[in-house]
Amino acid sequence: MSFAAQILTLYPEMFPGPLGVSLAGRALAEGKWSCDPIQMRSFATDKHRTVDDTPAGGGAGMVLKPDILARGVDHALEQRPDLPILAMTPRGKPITQARIRALANGPGVTLLCGRFEGFDERIFEARPIEQISMGDIILSGGEMGALMLLDACIRLLPGVMGAASSGIEESFETGLLEYPHYTRPVEWEGRRIPEVLRSGDHAKIAAWRKQQAETDTRLRRPDLWERHIGVRDQSPSGAQRENKD
Amino acid sequence: MSFAAQILTLYPEMFPGPLGVSLAGRALAEGKWSCDPIQMRSFATDKHRTVDDTPAGGGAGMVLKPDILARGVDHALEQRPDLPILAMTPRGKPITQARIRALANGPGVTLLCGRFEGFDERIFEARPIEQISMGDIILSGGEMGALMLLDACIRLLPGVMGAASSGIEESFETGLLEYPHYTRPVEWEGRRIPEVLRSGDHAKIAAWRKQQAETDTRLRRPDLWERHIGVRDQSPSGAQRENKD
Repeated sequence: MSFAAQILTLYPEMFPGPLGVSLAGRALAEGKWSCDPIQMRSFATDKHRTVDDTPAGGGAGMVLKPDILARGVDHALEQRPDLPILAMTPRGKPITQARIRALANGPGVTLLCGRFEGFDERIFEARPIEQISMGDIILSGGEMGALMLLDACIRLLPGVMGAASSGIEESFETGLLEYPHYTRPVEWEGRRIPEVLRSGDHAKIAAWRKQQAETDTRLRRPDLWERHIGVRDQSPSGAQRENKD
Repeated sequence: MSFAAQILTLYPEMFPGPLGVSLAGRALAEGKWSCDPIQMRSFATDKHRTVDDTPAGGGAGMVLKPDILARGVDHALEQRPDLPILAMTPRGKPITQARIRALANGPGVTLLCGRFEGFDERIFEARPIEQISMGDIILSGGEMGALMLLDACIRLLPGVMGAASSGIEESFETGLLEYPHYTRPVEWEGRRIPEVLRSGDHAKIAAWRKQQAETDTRLRRPDLWERHIGVRDQSPSGAQRENKD
């Protein structure tokens, strides 16, 4: 079964966009996922096709109207009632690799992309929508976040990356940053590949990589490290359990 | 002066892509920023235009070669020695709105996009490159993150958003999530816009919005809230100071 992406947006021409080339583009051509951008403006009811209005209480920018949003969301739900609906908003829950993996294991996703100042809040009370943040930065709209989210999902679909890359050893999948990589030439600008990686001793290599991942996580991402330590302390198999969601 | 974006990538056809439409597209057409994708493969030295090799010590995937990366980075530096170089990698420092604002206030940025398993680590010792993570999820490459980063910078360039949206009240700019928005209709599906927003009392509206922003941040993002409280406790003007970077 194919992974379905429905995207409610004022800029349907942005999709598949960069997801139409490389890994995701090949998977799209092979029918491993489908891309259905839906023009939100088509749910407007006046002749100017208005989707936004000024914020109640004053302030800059425009707010997406709840009635128009609801018509779009209801259309998406009618087409694919089985897909979770995620709205891209900085007020949302930060995305995690676990959530990406869960989405990739499911039937697909409907993405609601905001523009201007954002959504009328009532849409989140009135419809089953998960608010998701793609990071603590402000974008001009939800579209770039939607592209990033889909890219993260698509690479995990069966047969997309190939058997070689299970993704299990990658950053965040173990709760740690990934260890550093090296490749040929062995010596470059006076810098050599760490000797252990050329030893052929698989146990020693695995131990070195684990230690590097731990050190780098501790130094670069104390937030991840504390969570990792917390999980490890609670149960000896806790860190492993994090891999499966 | 125009904001310059140089992007070292194996997929130059992804740029400007979605940044060629809407707000960013108009700004590009008006010369407010420039987009110069550079094909990394053009720095390969063999007839197969090889850019990657197998990881030292074994494992899945391929690693971008340090010598080829360095040739690309040196070319970018030669073209624009004034631009900071950011590599998109999950091992990097998480991006912040403060870093975005600093970039947008500068001459531009050179972005290095990885593919496959990542970069040979030696490139980061040998060249002045800032490692940046766009979030704790794994992408098929750095390109989607680069698009997102550029989108966040471009909207802050002078004249792009217009005078109306200074961006000062938005999520993260104050260290808090933004307050919820409402617009017409006043009543929709039995749900009314909060009365205070229709009172015309600007002081009461500002107080309500501040309280909403604080409550939502505390409930949805305890991580942001703790940082906000910490800053506030250190100095009475601390929270304000966060606005300026």
